[in-house]
Amino acid sequence: MSEQTVQVKTTGKILQSPCGPIIHGLEDVLIKSTSISDIDGEKGILWYRGYRIEELARLSTYEEVSYLILYGRLPTKRELEDYINRMKKYRELHPATVEVIRNLAKAHPMFALEAAVAAEGAYDEDNQKLIEALSVGRYKAEEKELAYRIAEKLVAKMPTIVAYHYRFSRGLEVVRPRDDLGHAANFLYMMFGREPDPLASRGIDLYLILHADHEVPASTFAAHVVASTLSDLYSSVAAAIAALKGPLHGGANEMAVRNYLEIGTPAKAKEIVEAATKPGGPKLMGVGHRVYKAYDPRAKIFKEFSRDYVAKFGDPQNLFAIASAIEQEVLSHPYFQQRKLYPNVDFWSGIAFYYMGIPYEYFTPIFAMSRVVGWVAHVLEYWENNRIFRPRACYIGPHDLQYIPLEQR
Amino acid sequence: MSEQTVQVKTTGKILQSPCGPIIHGLEDVLIKSTSISDIDGEKGILWYRGYRIEELARLSTYEEVSYLILYGRLPTKRELEDYINRMKKYRELHPATVEVIRNLAKAHPMFALEAAVAAEGAYDEDNQKLIEALSVGRYKAEEKELAYRIAEKLVAKMPTIVAYHYRFSRGLEVVRPRDDLGHAANFLYMMFGREPDPLASRGIDLYLILHADHEVPASTFAAHVVASTLSDLYSSVAAAIAALKGPLHGGANEMAVRNYLEIGTPAKAKEIVEAATKPGGPKLMGVGHRVYKAYDPRAKIFKEFSRDYVAKFGDPQNLFAIASAIEQEVLSHPYFQQRKLYPNVDFWSGIAFYYMGIPYEYFTPIFAMSRVVGWVAHVLEYWENNRIFRPRACYIGPHDLQYIPLEQR
Ligand SMILES: CC(C)(COP(=O)(O)OP(=O)(O)OC[C@H]1O[C@@H](n2cnc3c(N)ncnc32)[C@H](O)[C@@H]1OP(=O)(O)O)[C@@H](O)C(=O)NCCC(=O)NCCS
Ligand SMILES: CC(C)(COP(=O)(O)OP(=O)(O)OC[C@H]1O[C@@H](n2cnc3c(N)ncnc32)[C@H](O)[C@@H]1OP(=O)(O)O)[C@@H](O)C(=O)NCCC(=O)NCCS
Repeated sequence: MSEQTVQVKTTGKILQSPCGPIIHGLEDVLIKSTSISDIDGEKGILWYRGYRIEELARLSTYEEVSYLILYGRLPTKRELEDYINRMKKYRELHPATVEVIRNLAKAHPMFALEAAVAAEGAYDEDNQKLIEALSVGRYKAEEKELAYRIAEKLVAKMPTIVAYHYRFSRGLEVVRPRDDLGHAANFLYMMFGREPDPLASRGIDLYLILHADHEVPASTFAAHVVASTLSDLYSSVAAAIAALKGPLHGGANEMAVRNYLEIGTPAKAKEIVEAATKPGGPKLMGVGHRVYKAYDPRAKIFKEFSRDYVAKFGDPQNLFAIASAIEQEVLSHPYFQQRKLYPNVDFWSGIAFYYMGIPYEYFTPIFAMSRVVGWVAHVLEYWENNRIFRPRACYIGPHDLQYIPLEQR
Repeated sequence: MSEQTVQVKTTGKILQSPCGPIIHGLEDVLIKSTSISDIDGEKGILWYRGYRIEELARLSTYEEVSYLILYGRLPTKRELEDYINRMKKYRELHPATVEVIRNLAKAHPMFALEAAVAAEGAYDEDNQKLIEALSVGRYKAEEKELAYRIAEKLVAKMPTIVAYHYRFSRGLEVVRPRDDLGHAANFLYMMFGREPDPLASRGIDLYLILHADHEVPASTFAAHVVASTLSDLYSSVAAAIAALKGPLHGGANEMAVRNYLEIGTPAKAKEIVEAATKPGGPKLMGVGHRVYKAYDPRAKIFKEFSRDYVAKFGDPQNLFAIASAIEQEVLSHPYFQQRKLYPNVDFWSGIAFYYMGIPYEYFTPIFAMSRVVGWVAHVLEYWENNRIFRPRACYIGPHDLQYIPLEQR
């Protein structure tokens, strides 16, 4: 094909090279059209499939939201029932996957999640069928049906992997999924072995709704790159988990809570916030966002939930009180105002997790449990018009160096 | 930062969107400057760190080439010895990784490779130290030292994972690595439990040299995306393996050999080649390349090796004879001449593997065993000037849909 020049707009950093300008981190570079989610960073709005996150958070469940994200529209009553029943059937793991998780009991759960997803994909017969078809370039109605089934399986199985790892890591036997519990409640049940308080279940459900998709951050992009070779959905999700693991992506909610615990009292909020405004000072965890230059709509929702949660169960470590005091300082400080830095969802989301007794290491795995539906929905969308990702690097080294034999070096 | 417009040149396909043009698959889009490898697709030249592949293939070993790719220059005698000794020390796997591989004995080895790399990363103490540092944004001299050590470990351990999986898949006990054997010979030894023929070892070594790097195909790009979140090297390599697994990336050498076996006789070459030129006809496996519009320099080298190999061991299935006959037809056929389609490295590389008794499923894992050094070298290069990958998708769906309660749908 002949060469064309394309105008690409970016607010990112541009690196110069002999081959032309390089947009560092591909910031703002378009990779596809999507109808899955949209973000208005200036106004602080997030939509899934056209629905505002506030509506979904208030009225829906993760089951329904994951259906919406996957299939593009809200289900009918019957469709939702069928979907939920299928999901319940898919919760169990292959025995080999359980063993893989057991072998990784002493590892960070994100590694276990990576390995377990690969293991589950290795033994899923639907996946083998789809791989067989993709290997000869076949992706028609029948294969799409397989792909959607696999997508549902991935959403259904993630909580089981996370909870099983938690059990093994504590030297406990696993608690198998229970058919009469919803997605969020069943997760807490598998973690702790008892029926959870409804408000705790609601907290997990709400968190899962809020994190289900967010356009194309690095994890979702990694899933695209892997899927674009016509590798499989499990492998794409494993790669996304690998990316989410990075501290520049997932993980800030853990650091925010650790921070509150260290601070210990709301009286110190002013001092802490002041320190963060000094050149070279420590950044305030859970504050600021690459896309949102307004209050993160998810943060607003989860803040309210956290307030309800501590109202019912108390705030013995002062986490909510400290976060609230920090927020007040942040919102009224010119440093943060000028830079449009607001609390993000991570600012609030760790507090309830902490009080539910969920260890820090499981915060990012729960993020993955939610985002998995965004990852698979984006891959399925990309497969509708697939093209392998094949960027370039500009070579700036020497050419035709002479090989000098080892003896003469 | 303020918005800038960048001119990007591409020979790829351009999709239109309301947000602007989209370069499908990011074809030709620059992601960084590199001094690792360079390809001249028109002339059919490949350089690693400035050295032409022909020189390295003739005079070097995978040990030396992997050092070159990783450290940017050829080692002195002493440096190479030390490197080789370290690599030998690193060959053994963590017991948990061995169990993960055993659990995946019945799975395709690429899945086992994904999971095993994640497992090994989970328990590597150097990796835990590096993760700890990266989580607070620290990547200085000490951390770089850790990162290079981890890179060496990954290169050293891959053959062990592949060979162990082969052993388990056949119900055999593993053969532990042997310190007195080189990288390639030790691999064959661990696979088959006996000291390999020197020509077979040379074949593996040569293959590993030829595949060690190739700029930024999808697998290497996936490694970049994961690493850019400051996730770890093991996770980046696991993601690269996930991408290499796809039939649009790895895997063509398997299909080429299957094809020769089906054809059965060189007499059919003309007919097969003719069929591939018909509209909608089956593509000729191992012919054509996205980048090379000349004879793939690696193909030329491996063809010669294959000739030597069958000269010594015979060609009982006529694979070399069939491939040679097909090549002759391809090179003289106007269809392939006009389109600049030549045999690529996959056209030849499966033949010797087949005669060595290596099952098809292990062809792509051996590719991964080689390319791992390219993956880690590219990640280390990118980390010198890291920026998280954060492209965008153009939202083309509706906004502010009204949530209708389930009962009313
Ligand atoms: C999320 C984040 C990376 C966004 O980055 P960004 O949009 O690229 O913004 P920048 O890092 O360029 O920051 C812009 C300015 O705000 C400051 N800033 C950003 N976040 C800050 C924070 N949390 N505390 C103090 N100052 C902050 C920067 O120092 C910079 O100041 P300068 O202009 O004087 O140099 C950044 O806000 C951050 O690191 N936040 C803390 C970690 C966190 O909560 N991450 C989770 C995000 S989901
Ligand atoms: C490798 C490959 C994907 C390169 O793709 P590309 O550079 O994008 O080239 P295209 O697919 O656009 O092909 C260009 C033309 O050559 C034809 N062509 C390419 N490879 C061909 C092959 N192996 N046999 C027959 N025709 C082939 C295409 O049909 C197309 O013809 P057209 O112009 O009449 O439509 C392609 O050559 C291929 O599929 N080869 C076979 C599989 C293989 O060996 N892959 C391993 C590569 S390492």
